[in-house]
Amino acid sequence: MIDLKTLEDFKAGKISEEQLLNMLKAAPFEDLGYANIDYHRKLRQGENEIIYGQGKTAEQIVGIVDNMTAHGLENILITRLSKQVFDEIAGRINAVYYESARIAVANPKETKKVGKVAIVSGGTSDLPVCEEAAVTLETLGNAVTRVYDVGVSGLHRLLAHLDEITDANVVIAVAGMEGALASVLGGLVSCPVIGVPTSVGYGANFEGLSALLAMLNSCASGVTVVNIDNGFGAGYFASMINKAVCKNK
Amino acid sequence: MIDLKTLEDFKAGKISEEQLLNMLKAAPFEDLGYANIDYHRKLRQGENEIIYGQGKTAEQIVGIVDNMTAHGLENILITRLSKQVFDEIAGRINAVYYESARIAVANPKETKKVGKVAIVSGGTSDLPVCEEAAVTLETLGNAVTRVYDVGVSGLHRLLAHLDEITDANVVIAVAGMEGALASVLGGLVSCPVIGVPTSVGYGANFEGLSALLAMLNSCASGVTVVNIDNGFGAGYFASMINKAVCKNK
Amino acid sequence: MIDLKTLEDFKAGKISEEQLLNMLKAAPFEDLGYANIDYHRKLRQGENEIIYGQGKTAEQIVGIVDNMTAHGLENILITRLSKQVFDEIAGRINAVYYESARIAVANPKETKKVGKVAIVSGGTSDLPVCEEAAVTLETLGNAVTRVYDVGVSGLHRLLAHLDEITDANVVIAVAGMEGALASVLGGLVSCPVIGVPTSVGYGANFEGLSALLAMLNSCASGVTVVNIDNGFGAGYFASMINKAVCKNK
Amino acid sequence: MIDLKTLEDFKAGKISEEQLLNMLKAAPFEDLGYANIDYHRKLRQGENEIIYGQGKTAEQIVGIVDNMTAHGLENILITRLSKQVFDEIAGRINAVYYESARIAVANPKETKKVGKVAIVSGGTSDLPVCEEAAVTLETLGNAVTRVYDVGVSGLHRLLAHLDEITDANVVIAVAGMEGALASVLGGLVSCPVIGVPTSVGYGANFEGLSALLAMLNSCASGVTVVNIDNGFGAGYFASMINKAVCKNK
Amino acid sequence: MIDLKTLEDFKAGKISEEQLLNMLKAAPFEDLGYANIDYHRKLRQGENEIIYGQGKTAEQIVGIVDNMTAHGLENILITRLSKQVFDEIAGRINAVYYESARIAVANPKETKKVGKVAIVSGGTSDLPVCEEAAVTLETLGNAVTRVYDVGVSGLHRLLAHLDEITDANVVIAVAGMEGALASVLGGLVSCPVIGVPTSVGYGANFEGLSALLAMLNSCASGVTVVNIDNGFGAGYFASMINKAVCKNK
Amino acid sequence: MIDLKTLEDFKAGKISEEQLLNMLKAAPFEDLGYANIDYHRKLRQGENEIIYGQGKTAEQIVGIVDNMTAHGLENILITRLSKQVFDEIAGRINAVYYESARIAVANPKETKKVGKVAIVSGGTSDLPVCEEAAVTLETLGNAVTRVYDVGVSGLHRLLAHLDEITDANVVIAVAGMEGALASVLGGLVSCPVIGVPTSVGYGANFEGLSALLAMLNSCASGVTVVNIDNGFGAGYFASMINKAVCKNK
Amino acid sequence: MIDLKTLEDFKAGKISEEQLLNMLKAAPFEDLGYANIDYHRKLRQGENEIIYGQGKTAEQIVGIVDNMTAHGLENILITRLSKQVFDEIAGRINAVYYESARIAVANPKETKKVGKVAIVSGGTSDLPVCEEAAVTLETLGNAVTRVYDVGVSGLHRLLAHLDEITDANVVIAVAGMEGALASVLGGLVSCPVIGVPTSVGYGANFEGLSALLAMLNSCASGVTVVNIDNGFGAGYFASMINKAVCKNK
Amino acid sequence: MIDLKTLEDFKAGKISEEQLLNMLKAAPFEDLGYANIDYHRKLRQGENEIIYGQGKTAEQIVGIVDNMTAHGLENILITRLSKQVFDEIAGRINAVYYESARIAVANPKETKKVGKVAIVSGGTSDLPVCEEAAVTLETLGNAVTRVYDVGVSGLHRLLAHLDEITDANVVIAVAGMEGALASVLGGLVSCPVIGVPTSVGYGANFEGLSALLAMLNSCASGVTVVNIDNGFGAGYFASMINKAVCKNK
Repeated sequence: MIDLKTLEDFKAGKISEEQLLNMLKAAPFEDLGYANIDYHRKLRQGENEIIYGQGKTAEQIVGIVDNMTAHGLENILITRLSKQVFDEIAGRINAVYYESARIAVANPKETKKVGKVAIVSGGTSDLPVCEEAAVTLETLGNAVTRVYDVGVSGLHRLLAHLDEITDANVVIAVAGMEGALASVLGGLVSCPVIGVPTSVGYGANFEGLSALLAMLNSCASGVTVVNIDNGFGAGYFASMINKAVCKNK
Repeated sequence: MIDLKTLEDFKAGKISEEQLLNMLKAAPFEDLGYANIDYHRKLRQGENEIIYGQGKTAEQIVGIVDNMTAHGLENILITRLSKQVFDEIAGRINAVYYESARIAVANPKETKKVGKVAIVSGGTSDLPVCEEAAVTLETLGNAVTRVYDVGVSGLHRLLAHLDEITDANVVIAVAGMEGALASVLGGLVSCPVIGVPTSVGYGANFEGLSALLAMLNSCASGVTVVNIDNGFGAGYFASMINKAVCKNK
Repeated sequence: MIDLKTLEDFKAGKISEEQLLNMLKAAPFEDLGYANIDYHRKLRQGENEIIYGQGKTAEQIVGIVDNMTAHGLENILITRLSKQVFDEIAGRINAVYYESARIAVANPKETKKVGKVAIVSGGTSDLPVCEEAAVTLETLGNAVTRVYDVGVSGLHRLLAHLDEITDANVVIAVAGMEGALASVLGGLVSCPVIGVPTSVGYGANFEGLSALLAMLNSCASGVTVVNIDNGFGAGYFASMINKAVCKNK
Repeated sequence: MIDLKTLEDFKAGKISEEQLLNMLKAAPFEDLGYANIDYHRKLRQGENEIIYGQGKTAEQIVGIVDNMTAHGLENILITRLSKQVFDEIAGRINAVYYESARIAVANPKETKKVGKVAIVSGGTSDLPVCEEAAVTLETLGNAVTRVYDVGVSGLHRLLAHLDEITDANVVIAVAGMEGALASVLGGLVSCPVIGVPTSVGYGANFEGLSALLAMLNSCASGVTVVNIDNGFGAGYFASMINKAVCKNK
Repeated sequence: MIDLKTLEDFKAGKISEEQLLNMLKAAPFEDLGYANIDYHRKLRQGENEIIYGQGKTAEQIVGIVDNMTAHGLENILITRLSKQVFDEIAGRINAVYYESARIAVANPKETKKVGKVAIVSGGTSDLPVCEEAAVTLETLGNAVTRVYDVGVSGLHRLLAHLDEITDANVVIAVAGMEGALASVLGGLVSCPVIGVPTSVGYGANFEGLSALLAMLNSCASGVTVVNIDNGFGAGYFASMINKAVCKNK
Repeated sequence: MIDLKTLEDFKAGKISEEQLLNMLKAAPFEDLGYANIDYHRKLRQGENEIIYGQGKTAEQIVGIVDNMTAHGLENILITRLSKQVFDEIAGRINAVYYESARIAVANPKETKKVGKVAIVSGGTSDLPVCEEAAVTLETLGNAVTRVYDVGVSGLHRLLAHLDEITDANVVIAVAGMEGALASVLGGLVSCPVIGVPTSVGYGANFEGLSALLAMLNSCASGVTVVNIDNGFGAGYFASMINKAVCKNK
Repeated sequence: MIDLKTLEDFKAGKISEEQLLNMLKAAPFEDLGYANIDYHRKLRQGENEIIYGQGKTAEQIVGIVDNMTAHGLENILITRLSKQVFDEIAGRINAVYYESARIAVANPKETKKVGKVAIVSGGTSDLPVCEEAAVTLETLGNAVTRVYDVGVSGLHRLLAHLDEITDANVVIAVAGMEGALASVLGGLVSCPVIGVPTSVGYGANFEGLSALLAMLNSCASGVTVVNIDNGFGAGYFASMINKAVCKNK
Repeated sequence: MIDLKTLEDFKAGKISEEQLLNMLKAAPFEDLGYANIDYHRKLRQGENEIIYGQGKTAEQIVGIVDNMTAHGLENILITRLSKQVFDEIAGRINAVYYESARIAVANPKETKKVGKVAIVSGGTSDLPVCEEAAVTLETLGNAVTRVYDVGVSGLHRLLAHLDEITDANVVIAVAGMEGALASVLGGLVSCPVIGVPTSVGYGANFEGLSALLAMLNSCASGVTVVNIDNGFGAGYFASMINKAVCKNK
């Protein structure tokens, strides 16, 4: 693959012309017709390709997992996977299913958990999004602290859990409705806060728009935002930071 | 005017048929051609008609004020009045101008201030909207406490002023950006909170939409909302509550 | 809990340092893992925490009610509770269910009803939202007057009921479609009007947006707004005003 | 022109083949390069083509008027014409300018006014839109009644003018903010009501969107809607109805 | 009822004070608890109150119809009535059901059809909306011409039917997708055109928004618009015009 | 039909007056009541009329196909046809069904495939939209190359397939989520790129809005866009270009 | 540059490993700090890089043009260039300015014009967008036919110009307001139609949204769309098609 | 201040009850009437409070800076500060102004720059937003690499700069229009990518909405987003990560 560090190494003389060209020929992905599995991602980003389960048939998912298994990969995340589709594939691949997170992990293997990421939620209804982030983080090897149902309408609940939150390397703030949790946490902690707006609520929340806009307009510095209900995206991003911080410790 | 208590009084025999018909004939408003001044409002609602200054010429405003003055009215609120238009009318009517509030009060007269309304704002830039509410409230005879620039990104600033806020009869929460202040106050105080979303911010605040949606979706109970930047509306509504509470004391 | 009147009392010498610190240690909420029940709300706001039923499992709701029951609480509101979930929990807790309001009240106990709140609706289809407000108000101890299906397309129907409306302490205006009822009532009565836009209608009502925007832009003063279909929120807010007005009588 | 009654006449033998083909050759418009003036409209619809002034240079407008003048046309409406552009063309064409309506009428000629159209507005700030409708109607030969500043926040003002409104053939309801006037009028009168939402207001009126959606969702039957601030469109449509009704009297 | 012509008549001495007051006492509507039936509408507008079926139970509809029947009313329109609810009420009231129009007519009675209204549609899928307009018009006593599936992508189909359209008193243009039909018809005919945007289409039609905005921005004069899919509204409005034009013939 | 080349031919003397009038009389469409089939399209545009299946009953579709079959037409495309409706019509017409494309082709006949159109998709979930384009193109006689699941998150997968893409006459870029594929392809290839935004994704993709806006704002030149999920539209447009380019080879 | 045909050539043995690597080293762009000029585009796409003038200082534009001039490039398009900025740079580079198109062409050189592209507009106010397309097309070597102000409100004007339009290789339909022109043209001609929605109009056109949505939802096949007011984009895309069609003639 | 680590320390016996209470009394902020300066932020988050310049008067800014200067603070960031307001305050405080970034730094002091943050932009017009991020980062003590104008329409420009980007600890992707840069970078690098959508573009970019939605829907993992044009927010967040990673090296 030439579009990355290879260019530098080549310029620095670390790899030869012949090596460069062999790389060009051996494209690091596999074409299943309906899917092009990116095996280069692990080299490029340090993590396996993630399988986005929504909109894929059981057949397609099994095909992709089998191919990845043949490449010796473990802890393969399959996100947005309904219980129904998991039941169809359960006997055909080696996988555990986290129902509230709607995630399956194929070829599961225990990993060491490093650092600390705190997942804080506004209400009980945000739980599926929280767990999507949590399972993603844990599968990728991060230690997670869960602090749920501490929305801003009863600040003392949040303040009482502050000591579990303030020593994290990253905080994920999950909230629907007015999404104020991200701003409040942004003002309280000294580490990066990742806001996850959820579609919890009704009426003028417009399927999560209210929380999304609120988090994007956080008056507190140190807050960025992912897509509505995107627990996986927040977990993946938090993992990047947490592991980078831990690597140098 | 028949569309009010008159019907009850008539049913109860308190007013005669003749009286009822005379009321029908004497419509309690005055038609200036470009404006129909509602002199019945004072009877119906206990307050003068308010002059909405925006989009009216100096000539029209002077005409309306003169007519109301001839009816003996005092403390006439003229809202959304630019400094420029006020300067045009300054010599022709008896009025004081509150520049940051963009309000003029014609035929001003000192009134007794009752009860307590707290106006709390997220940032310094929300000041014009706060002052619109404050001047409205004071002109209508309410005592006002101002607590400005205590947004949720530094909660300790808000907590430190809590004792000035918690004994109010009504709280007005003025905030732009993510508008979280309304929810946080809604969770802390025991009186009604009126949220005023402001257009302060940029980008995905979409001229106040972010704060508006956030306040409408407050996870705290006891919060209602007025239009973006509508300090007057919040002040008028708060005055209704504050005076009703005080009347019975 | 330190973030409230406690600070004042401490400053005033009414509570000692030792008392203050004991308060800090005894956080007034209970952590069920999936929920943090806020028992401080009753002290802070005078009402129990409300259980938002939507998105919660029967198991979770029973757990929360059991815990609140153990604390001796009565008249616990469970809002947005579907008939189906209520049927699952009906035998396990002591509760009555108001189907059109989608509200259950656990540990119901007769309360004295004070003051008067008028609930006025535009059409028959707005009934569920009206009843959500009505049951909330009555459970919290307020007297309620219902005036339904008097939308502005036949003004004489509204005018004929005016005497039932004009002596209320608060009016709740519930309307979908163009939501004009809030403005019309705002111009007719002398007490605060709380507008509840409903999602009743089709096409360019955009799930309640038309009524929401209309009510936010009311040309009549004295109108505030809650979220689309949020009968509970309007009822809770109206209860705050009605009880404050009555307390001093 | 073949795309109209001509076909019927041809089928009915009223016009010959030769006549039909001659019509095809003589296209009833004139191409000025920057504009194709539709001289067929008068035959087709009974009115001159209207010149939409916005976005046109003084030079272009003079060119079009000169060409139409050469065809002997009178009472040519030029809408959305700024005072500034009118001043540039004032000496070069024979025209009167209605400043509040932003309309010029070229080659003005007194016409008989038939029937009755009532223009009713919510506030003083809606006046320019009202006048655009009024000047259009009067130029096209309709009698107009103006009832301004009778918004729903003071219903008695509207009720007091009802007798001026109820005998019209068409009512035009002009209102910004929550646009409730259209629904209220729709419920009171027995003739068609044309709603004109205006951009008057601020914040969540979103440049007229609130009034537009409200009028489209009118709970009263007998209401249709034109574009925001489109006084001309309402006037033109009302003229069609008023004249059709009068023609048969 | 005092808010109408009564005032004029009273001023003109046509009705006495006693008569006026008796009118006040006898409010011309009936309160069923869940509904306030407006019996004054027939006097005020010349048509029965319409029953909006959506969101009403079979029980409620039967109750309203029974009450109206007891008042001797015929040809009662029940709109937006699903087949399923009609089947529940079919045996209990005297009614015919128009399935494609989703309209039932209770106490049906043949009426004379006057004038002519043309209903023109863009595509086959717009048929239910067209029929809602058509059944409304016919029940109210208007003659209707149907010209369906003549959208602008094949202009010759529209031009071929022009002779059926051009002699109507009103044209109703029903179209989804880009809604161009209203503009094109507006340019071709000399009578008023009422545009009915439909939700037919997908993607960026946003449930009818594309056709709605297109029709509101028609470059042709003489076009007004009703709510998305509001065939009834267009039919009712067209009936008003058609009957007014015919009355004077 | 007169609104096309006929006019030129008539002017050039190629057709006589008599011929022109006969054309006028024989309108080239057939009126089935619920549908007006456009048989002139083949003459005008070189392709049959397409049957848009959505919202049509099985009965209507069979009726249209039978009529077109009677005119001797082959390879009739029926788009947006659900499996369920196809099963209803399968025994009554001669047709093949492409399930993933939701397209049936009635009276199928092998055609020669010319040129080359490349269909490139971002993910596996975009497959139905891709296949709608592909089946459309192949039925209309174009050769198609499919390159699926090569989204921009793994650019090397796209670059590896570039040689299959760069020699096409047209490229169709199908992508949901952020829709970046259209811009990236627009920068890489020298032929026209047609972007098809899909509704694939969740949350702030707002049913395809994110991809739609992204493609409309492509920073690369040479990109146009069709409606969300409109694989047919892209295929039809691409066929026009591909065949025009091939015709002259 | 490796990301294009080079890969094929390398696979086919047409270029050697050494050549491939030399290509990698010589990146075909020039970095001015504030801009990276893409000299590879001409090789890749056959046209110069276009300079997007908006948001660039006179200094930056001159710098880019000087650099491109030094590379021997001619007919460099600078789009969205205000008259004011052009005046600043006029003396420093060799350029002609097309004011209505807001385009400058640096190092202008007469080119042969091939094929035919028809630009059709709805109104006179769309002229700047039309000219942006026209100047782009002519500078890139295409013959252009202009048919302006033939909107659908007077169809005979459009039909009369049909013979100038029907023999084009591509049609560009430029329209604001309801944007119906694209659909109507899509139904009349047999070549691809590119719709350019313009921001011409007011109110509910929402700065071009109405025309944009209308064109995206065209009921006629064979229509694609570019960004609002994007005359350049339509011209560039049309040039691609027109030249591809002509190349093979 | 009690809402932070203090609680832990108190629980751990590290601070006494007396110390805790003294903290409560000494609120770490200063109330200027119009502003409450948060001096606790430095303790809580390690950075000074930032002054948001927009909407503040010169007088207010000087007051705040003077107060902060009296507290001995250096490198005070004043963001969104227009040149005009800076000129008013330039002589009264000690500050440098970065015009393209619209940032002033009061009491500037050279700081050591650690780690590496790469700022990558799509076009030259995004420069002000990029510089806002860059000046923020450098003032907070981070080393910055600028790679501007490498949008996805010419991928080779981006690929050629990859070696400057891939060894950063964080990448900031700044782009308007379709915002594809964030997704493409997210797929290429192994560190966190912060997307900054800009309002650069026109028409259907809707002031930055297109890029915002695109970035929120990135198909590449490892991307979060800040508000439109919020270069400061991205810089501040990147600084948090970069410094956390460097601290442990």
